[in-house]
Amino acid sequence: MEVMQVLHMNKGNGDTSYAKNSTVQREIISFGKAIIEEALLQLSGNNDIESMGIADLGCSSGPNTLSVISEIMEVVRAACGHLGRPVPEFRLFLNDLYSNDFNYLFMSLPPFYKRLKEEKGIGVASHCFISGVPGSFYGRLFPTNLLHFVYSFSSLHWLSQVPVGLESHALEHLNKGKVYISKSSPQSVLDAYSSQFQADFSAFIESRSQELVPGGRMVLSFLGRRSIDPAADEGCYQWELLAEALMSLVKEGLIEEEKVDSFNTPYYAPSAEEIKAEIEKEGSFLIDRLQAFEVDWDGGVVTDIHTEQGKALIGERVAKTVRAVVESMLESHFQIGQHTIDVLFLKFAEIVGNYLSQTRTKYINFVISLVKKT
Amino acid sequence: MEVMQVLHMNKGNGDTSYAKNSTVQREIISFGKAIIEEALLQLSGNNDIESMGIADLGCSSGPNTLSVISEIMEVVRAACGHLGRPVPEFRLFLNDLYSNDFNYLFMSLPPFYKRLKEEKGIGVASHCFISGVPGSFYGRLFPTNLLHFVYSFSSLHWLSQVPVGLESHALEHLNKGKVYISKSSPQSVLDAYSSQFQADFSAFIESRSQELVPGGRMVLSFLGRRSIDPAADEGCYQWELLAEALMSLVKEGLIEEEKVDSFNTPYYAPSAEEIKAEIEKEGSFLIDRLQAFEVDWDGGVVTDIHTEQGKALIGERVAKTVRAVVESMLESHFQIGQHTIDVLFLKFAEIVGNYLSQTRTKYINFVISLVKKT
Repeated sequence: MEVMQVLHMNKGNGDTSYAKNSTVQREIISFGKAIIEEALLQLSGNNDIESMGIADLGCSSGPNTLSVISEIMEVVRAACGHLGRPVPEFRLFLNDLYSNDFNYLFMSLPPFYKRLKEEKGIGVASHCFISGVPGSFYGRLFPTNLLHFVYSFSSLHWLSQVPVGLESHALEHLNKGKVYISKSSPQSVLDAYSSQFQADFSAFIESRSQELVPGGRMVLSFLGRRSIDPAADEGCYQWELLAEALMSLVKEGLIEEEKVDSFNTPYYAPSAEEIKAEIEKEGSFLIDRLQAFEVDWDGGVVTDIHTEQGKALIGERVAKTVRAVVESMLESHFQIGQHTIDVLFLKFAEIVGNYLSQTRTKYINFVISLVKKT
Repeated sequence: MEVMQVLHMNKGNGDTSYAKNSTVQREIISFGKAIIEEALLQLSGNNDIESMGIADLGCSSGPNTLSVISEIMEVVRAACGHLGRPVPEFRLFLNDLYSNDFNYLFMSLPPFYKRLKEEKGIGVASHCFISGVPGSFYGRLFPTNLLHFVYSFSSLHWLSQVPVGLESHALEHLNKGKVYISKSSPQSVLDAYSSQFQADFSAFIESRSQELVPGGRMVLSFLGRRSIDPAADEGCYQWELLAEALMSLVKEGLIEEEKVDSFNTPYYAPSAEEIKAEIEKEGSFLIDRLQAFEVDWDGGVVTDIHTEQGKALIGERVAKTVRAVVESMLESHFQIGQHTIDVLFLKFAEIVGNYLSQTRTKYINFVISLVKKT
């Protein structure tokens, strides 16, 4: 499976779109905003920047994208005001894979510019330049020394591809009935996943180290795990339940078992140690901060999950969030249409509701703040 | 009518898409390529550029977009080889309005990169950076002094809006039964169109003069007219025939006459004098070259137009080309669906076939090569 072609958040702004189902990501962003603010204050304090290059890597196409941009400009403006410096020109680069819905994102720019002007008095005519940069962040995206600040939210847990080995026909059935690392996965599956993460994450760090100016800063936020064990629930249980939903469709004859056996999600939830190891090996960044926090699978919206209604509600919310993110991949691998996808996520919602009413497993999200050495 | 929201070439790559119906534009590009090559040779000869900023303004989303880019890189590489200089890094900016089909364009990048690598040995990993820049080129799009070379093909004949005056309810019926300047149009309509061109074109020149480095170059190619008379056939007869087709649908009760009266195309075919006047008034560019040439309405593909078959063929080809460009505007103004649009362009094809078999009116296309003064 060519991830670069297949992985994208659900397009547009309909009921199953990413734009309408990214509350969890917004929740994660709100945790990360304080860290972004801190990084920007350090950056603005130590550098007199006339024109600031800022990149959102894995920007997707929902409302979160532009809300972070507006926040960043606000923070830098305030910092410059405080320091008695002129506000820099902003060059904002929105990156995502080629198949991202850039059309939807770009169409939301005119009202965004209008709001900026009305609410914050920021005229964008000559000091805010937004562009879209399509491509994989696991390689070079920008000229050398172009950027001052890079951030990436809820993207780096996606691998560049299904782990090497698991995508080949000989080996793809090593992970029978599962779609990600599971307690039943053999060691070879665990190894394939962690090797792919190492290759990808080090390529990411290396590319950014060339694109950022010395002293430039980077804030990364993505899912991971606190446990050393990659099969710990916090790192993979959502996939365990998705596999369960898929297998129940196998029983109903709606999809083939062989297709489930050969599907492995290009995803990895690393530990803090694995992350640090790659950053230190590459060597051009200092880790200013590395924090882990818990996030509810539904973004913490549903509170009473012990009633039947609450169970149904949380199941449905989690299913919508996951669907907006993985639908394009499932469609491509299983070659199934909207109806079967609907059935799958109804089943998944039910399974998730039952599970969460018993065990409130949460995602673990890392926020990492890095400085490029001078 | 908000041109920024409504004007876009037909999306995707279906039968009525711009991607499949842009032969005329390709024809125009092939005329312009020699001028681009000349400009690039001058640019590369006089400047030792490490990283070259290049912008395609009004890039649209068809195959023409990437073919020009590949040509440009080829010319610069050859020139540098000849001069014994290292090939610069290319930063390529693809601009069009917010509603352009950037998704389609971006999805064609991976095969484009593959071809570049296979056919020309250009690895894009670290020396070719392509981004999309949505927005109107009648204002600032880029930071100051970012660009070395700008080109714009088949775009500058589109105005930023329906001419001021003609879009207001009091005045919009000045041009009854017509959709652009016509021999029957009152002087006030002619004045409104030429004033709007002046305002737009001067805003274009002014914005680019800030974005281009001193010595930077610009090649512009767009439709115009040789005659001083803005109502001369070469400048407007395609619109005369489209108005005729629209009026025949009025007779059939498919659209309202009032809607035709109130529709004015945001288009202008200027004379060389009008173009020069704005460039000279702004003052930061030297005109290196200004040439006019004729282009067949069908791109010169159909040769025998006196047979019934030939008439039908040329009518159909011209109708497809015009449809791919104006459909979005017509849909939005007339609030008509695919069926009525189909009927309209069948009628238009017939009218065009009959007309061209009698009078082979051609478009006049300008190519202008400009240098920013140092």
